Amino acid sequence: MSRMAKTPDPPYVAVIFSSLRVTLNGDDYSRTAERMEELAGLEPGFLGIESARDESGYGITVSYWKDLQSAHRWKDNAEHRLAQQRGRSRWYRNYAVRIAVVERDYGHSND
Amino acid sequence: MSRMAKTPDPPYVAVIFSSLRVTLNGDDYSRTAERMEELAGLEPGFLGIESARDESGYGITVSYWKDLQSAHRWKDNAEHRLAQQRGRSRWYRNYAVRIAVVERDYGHSND
Repeated sequence: MSRMAKTPDPPYVAVIFSSLRVTLNGDDYSRTAERMEELAGLEPGFLGIESARDESGYGITVSYWKDLQSAHRWKDNAEHRLAQQRGRSRWYRNYAVRIAVVERDYGHSND
Repeated sequence: MSRMAKTPDPPYVAVIFSSLRVTLNGDDYSRTAERMEELAGLEPGFLGIESARDESGYGITVSYWKDLQSAHRWKDNAEHRLAQQRGRSRWYRNYAVRIAVVERDYGHSND
């Protein structure tokens, strides 16, 4: 499966989540991360997700949404809010979230 | 040095570059990637850059710009255009570029 999100023509919304993990091993982080991706996929307005984390624990995840309202509803999802709390207290040394409206996109494929 | 970009209050522009590398070793990719980061930093309107690539070769780089005009000027930079050509023909299996206007941001730090 391609890891590039298949998004529609702009405009749509991108939520850029940049984070530095505290530790790379142990705890229930991976399970929760998988569950959050699954859960986001069920949310109305979800368009796709792209994620990369390097061996230092620094990662960027971008989720794509139909509009600002659907992105905001995902932030307020009850199970997601619990995960956000654990993220702040246990998993991340620091993180930044940026909510942006995609105005233009293009790509290239050698496949 | 923190790998989180220090951006001003919104609005500002995010250019999201998602890519899958063909090979992780060899050639002059790393040198060019470093040079492009250095060169972007000299461009008027540059605000910062965040980048993560995992061991599979999948990566996300987000560069931040004062406005759409400065982001566009960077795309047209002559040396950058040469690197883009080499990216298409040699380094990336596929990639996507999304130009977005950041409307809101927030973060958290345990430092």
